[in-house]
Amino acid sequence: MKTIYFEDNMVKYIDQTLLPAEYKVVSCTDVKKLEVAIKTLAIRGAPAIGVAGAYGIVLGALSYNGNNKDDFFKIIKDSENIKNARPTAVNLMWAVERMMRHFASIKNNSIEEIKKELVLEAERIRKEDAEINRQMGQYGHPLISTGDGVLTHCNAGALATSEYGTALGVIRAAVEAGKKIRVYSDETRPLLQGARLTTWELKEDGIPVTLICDNMAGISMRRGLIQKVIVGADRIAMNGDAANKIGTYQVAVLAKENNIPFYIAAPISTFDPKAKTGEDIPIEERDKEEVTHLGGKRIATEGIDVFNPAFDVTPAKYISGIITERGVLKPPYEKSIKELFDNSC
Amino acid sequence: MKTIYFEDNMVKYIDQTLLPAEYKVVSCTDVKKLEVAIKTLAIRGAPAIGVAGAYGIVLGALSYNGNNKDDFFKIIKDSENIKNARPTAVNLMWAVERMMRHFASIKNNSIEEIKKELVLEAERIRKEDAEINRQMGQYGHPLISTGDGVLTHCNAGALATSEYGTALGVIRAAVEAGKKIRVYSDETRPLLQGARLTTWELKEDGIPVTLICDNMAGISMRRGLIQKVIVGADRIAMNGDAANKIGTYQVAVLAKENNIPFYIAAPISTFDPKAKTGEDIPIEERDKEEVTHLGGKRIATEGIDVFNPAFDVTPAKYISGIITERGVLKPPYEKSIKELFDNSC
Repeated sequence: MKTIYFEDNMVKYIDQTLLPAEYKVVSCTDVKKLEVAIKTLAIRGAPAIGVAGAYGIVLGALSYNGNNKDDFFKIIKDSENIKNARPTAVNLMWAVERMMRHFASIKNNSIEEIKKELVLEAERIRKEDAEINRQMGQYGHPLISTGDGVLTHCNAGALATSEYGTALGVIRAAVEAGKKIRVYSDETRPLLQGARLTTWELKEDGIPVTLICDNMAGISMRRGLIQKVIVGADRIAMNGDAANKIGTYQVAVLAKENNIPFYIAAPISTFDPKAKTGEDIPIEERDKEEVTHLGGKRIATEGIDVFNPAFDVTPAKYISGIITERGVLKPPYEKSIKELFDNSC
Repeated sequence: MKTIYFEDNMVKYIDQTLLPAEYKVVSCTDVKKLEVAIKTLAIRGAPAIGVAGAYGIVLGALSYNGNNKDDFFKIIKDSENIKNARPTAVNLMWAVERMMRHFASIKNNSIEEIKKELVLEAERIRKEDAEINRQMGQYGHPLISTGDGVLTHCNAGALATSEYGTALGVIRAAVEAGKKIRVYSDETRPLLQGARLTTWELKEDGIPVTLICDNMAGISMRRGLIQKVIVGADRIAMNGDAANKIGTYQVAVLAKENNIPFYIAAPISTFDPKAKTGEDIPIEERDKEEVTHLGGKRIATEGIDVFNPAFDVTPAKYISGIITERGVLKPPYEKSIKELFDNSC
């Protein structure tokens, strides 16, 4: 399942706000509209919004039909704004900055050549994401055994990436390796990515899935239904503290209390070298209507206060391992993350 | 605010499924309809369904207009079925059994006298519940200080009792004592009693309240917004293990992990002398449509499995104190609960 791709000079993406009721692929040629799609969560998931960010620079470049390099460069510079569409996931910033670095290296080429090169770089980012996910699956699936109940939170699936998925990629790899497992999906309020997206893509793939409300993770663990927890991440600090969809921290605490391993699956682009600890990760707060309304209909009392953080930070001490495309990092994370980065350069 | 009361030979209750959109008082003269109201959560909350159960026996008795004692007794015996309307809250059983014991003691009276006496006993149960809640408030509010953020889960408020509330009764008593506090209300999926009912009754009383999703309790604690947790209970075992609305266990684990005191407020009728531990408490599982649908509209993928337990059990080790109408019980609960019962007899 391809979530976001480039075809006929258009960015095409599944509108995730309509799932599971409607499967709709939107064609987009306007970087501003792509930015709105990220803000409204039509495109969501840290790796997927990274790919979208890269495509944003492409759409900016392609929108210029003139011959003046200064004007062309200004439009590309303006497109870079897309990296601010959401604050927590670092992949968005990472992908846009990679595009801009590539752009800087080819500035002396012709406008047409620059356009072509930007498309190629964005396509590389998309394809690398897909390959990375499959590599994470290969490293991660030995952690899962036949008979396991695997809890996941939010959607770290094909829909959150260009294809295959991070946490759900590991689950897919386990199933492809012949393991019989059952996934438990937290519904993930307020926007129900678990209920709407995770259950949808697992059902499409024929992987057994049981939906629970976020407040049922604890009883599911105590009843012995859950043997492993695997989630994605939106940003990981250099000490291993990991930001992910709101509610992840609670799941991690419950897993620890019930002696269940808690894993994160995330590509290396999710690590933020500038964030020493979770304290350095900005947490997006969103409109209170996301909590008080559902489908445009009010479900809560009028005129009350609401606290609606979109993410939380899970301290490293609750994380049993971080599954990356270059292996599973283990505590102490200061050391294993440093080694990962030292070996990358 | 009176949730359920007896007037003009009718049981009158607030239909809690319609709140906060609509405030509607239903008049009921039929024990079977009252049973349906309990099953569909139009009347809900352990103490309130206890009162409703007592009124059920009254409605059964009043429905008989003949002169044959055997027929009259049979109708009362049939009404006793209302105690099975929901399995977890022990107050329902307790109240119906108290009514039946009283009935047994007045069997030799005339039909008219028995009817009158049953009304009086049910009214005593209702009034005692209101008084008990106020006593719990007096014992419990010293646990709360000015400046506290107090987290509660589900609705253990006036709506869950005949009036005033258990956990929210303690909060009301703190506010009446002049303390400035803010309540954080978990929305409490799937039926949103927190979002719909707790916020509504606190707003009616002018008590500051902030709504959060169930998966935001953890971040709220880590951010330092929460200093105390107070919830109700549907059944408490003799070792202190307490069944309450699904998700309570998670809140208790998070409170412990964040060094925040976690209190239960519940009348003595919530203790089940037959339940040695939480293992002996039956946990109701409800329809999967409660999770997959909201307001009649599907919010989750079709054809998936769902696990929908209505309650969970919080082990005694997570509970800092149990606020009753005769004081605050402290661990070890085997001892403090035994003393409570020894002194009651």
